[in-house]
Amino acid sequence: MVRTPPLDGLRSLVMDMPGPDLAAAAAVTARDARLTKPPGALGRLEAIAEWLALWQGREQPRIERPLVVVFAGNHGVVAQGVAAYPQAVTKQMVANFQAGGAAINQLCKTFNLGLKIFELALDDPTGDITERPALNESDCAAAIAYGMEALEGNPDLLCVGEMGIGNTTIAAAVCHGLYGGRPEDWVGPGTGVDSQGLSRKTQAVRRAVALHGPHLGDPLEVLRRLGGRELAAMMGAIVAARHSHVPVLIDGYVATASAAVLHAMRADALDHCLAAHCSAEPAHRELLRRLGKEPLLDLGMRLGEASGAALAAALVKAAADLHSGMATFESAGVADREKPGI
Amino acid sequence: MVRTPPLDGLRSLVMDMPGPDLAAAAAVTARDARLTKPPGALGRLEAIAEWLALWQGREQPRIERPLVVVFAGNHGVVAQGVAAYPQAVTKQMVANFQAGGAAINQLCKTFNLGLKIFELALDDPTGDITERPALNESDCAAAIAYGMEALEGNPDLLCVGEMGIGNTTIAAAVCHGLYGGRPEDWVGPGTGVDSQGLSRKTQAVRRAVALHGPHLGDPLEVLRRLGGRELAAMMGAIVAARHSHVPVLIDGYVATASAAVLHAMRADALDHCLAAHCSAEPAHRELLRRLGKEPLLDLGMRLGEASGAALAAALVKAAADLHSGMATFESAGVADREKPGI
Repeated sequence: MVRTPPLDGLRSLVMDMPGPDLAAAAAVTARDARLTKPPGALGRLEAIAEWLALWQGREQPRIERPLVVVFAGNHGVVAQGVAAYPQAVTKQMVANFQAGGAAINQLCKTFNLGLKIFELALDDPTGDITERPALNESDCAAAIAYGMEALEGNPDLLCVGEMGIGNTTIAAAVCHGLYGGRPEDWVGPGTGVDSQGLSRKTQAVRRAVALHGPHLGDPLEVLRRLGGRELAAMMGAIVAARHSHVPVLIDGYVATASAAVLHAMRADALDHCLAAHCSAEPAHRELLRRLGKEPLLDLGMRLGEASGAALAAALVKAAADLHSGMATFESAGVADREKPGI
Repeated sequence: MVRTPPLDGLRSLVMDMPGPDLAAAAAVTARDARLTKPPGALGRLEAIAEWLALWQGREQPRIERPLVVVFAGNHGVVAQGVAAYPQAVTKQMVANFQAGGAAINQLCKTFNLGLKIFELALDDPTGDITERPALNESDCAAAIAYGMEALEGNPDLLCVGEMGIGNTTIAAAVCHGLYGGRPEDWVGPGTGVDSQGLSRKTQAVRRAVALHGPHLGDPLEVLRRLGGRELAAMMGAIVAARHSHVPVLIDGYVATASAAVLHAMRADALDHCLAAHCSAEPAHRELLRRLGKEPLLDLGMRLGEASGAALAAALVKAAADLHSGMATFESAGVADREKPGI
């Protein structure tokens, strides 16, 4: 009997991704021209309304069930002294999320966003990528599948983020594995390591990519060997969102590194995603540039937890509300440029 | 009997502006260090919480009664063919605001912001600045005083914006009057004039500044001669907010030009203000640079109506909620960097 490789299901889902709903977007464009404002005056908010239509497949895009999902994982690579906080903090922060005390809890309250936390085997950190692959194939596939559960409950906007001590090292390794360059190009201070910690991070990324180098032609091998469970899960969530017609806001550097694996598999795989913000992690800007994504916000944040995505969700909600709720020139009795007689 | 010049009251208020509450900000800084996040990880949101404390004078800043104020005025300079829409649109848009159909109405609904519209003698446009001063002293003082009424009802955050066909020409004239350079440096397409309209705008600004040039050493004369009622009112609102300990979000190019008059009177006059966004009007970025203001958002908007300020209010509300609502390391049982044993 031939065993089906565990990651083949994901490969099929990526190859079968649905495309945009051009008719819905055309309806938005047509309605936008009739709203009581000069054409183009809402700038990027107008483009966001069209983007929502493209990927929700709705002529009147709306955000009624926005959902924030935070995936938490632990990483063997912290044994290399790459993190500013002890590994126990991942679990403690999950408890903080569940108790409502973290930044993401407040942001979800402020903006009426749903919040789900996904713990990924926190007592079983991934393999130390400087010595072995982070995950075997079935564990990687299981984490991806777990991420797909983010779509339960039919959200109409998904904010994707993470928590995991050590995972900016993992994100840097994934980016270095995907894009090459020097390890220094992709490594940053994360939650705030000192210069020695930064040096250890850089060395760890260098050694990991050197070790796994011969296998990194396949983006899914980059994820499995250099990534981690929360990165795999975020990727699963992003793929499942595409199939469920749910637009996605990608949070910071780690979430974007996860998305980059998909982008490497298929150049249009992130068309249903916006980059919520550009974080203070130095490599994030270059990573966004490679993905062709212009971030919505640029506030020097570097927290993770989907915090940037939650802030951006407020802008996206506003864009949807503006499009659906504003009066038209006709209904408001306002003179349009071409029809000054009204 | 000696008549008191009508604008002297404003001059006194500007000279007597209260300073920041450093003790309140220090309390915010101290609490911030205990919140369950790496120091600095919320980036600019942390600075916003401190700024709120400085200018609300509260150790626990909060946004419970945010208010958007939109001042509407009409301008004699539209006779020069500088605007893309007929002057009647100012009044029609005020009716649209009152009926709830405009962009600002939707934004206020989405983010639970109060909204007040101030009409400023729409049937009596200001003087054509290419031929005479926009306002006499008492009308200018009356508009400033009207603007101060924005503070009634004790808001705890004020979003300041405007509506007025022709007022990007007025803003350009004010900036050219304050900062010199060439008229072209300050004139842009506004709501969308064509190239001929743009040329007429530039000529109008050139002629206006040439006509009033000898009197423009006094910023209040720049406002009175080249400005308009909604610019005077926004300035009044900003000054009154400072005296009432209410932080301000300044909207787009026209609102910023109004604020620039204050800044020219006193360099620290806008310390209680943040620039909500950088608009698509090309001169706005340079104007913000001269004021030393880094905009919170950069979304290519150019609508006015306080729309950018309303969006930014959502970010400011989030900053306040994060600061007051997040758990501390002690309360959440999360290990801090310096105390890994917790």
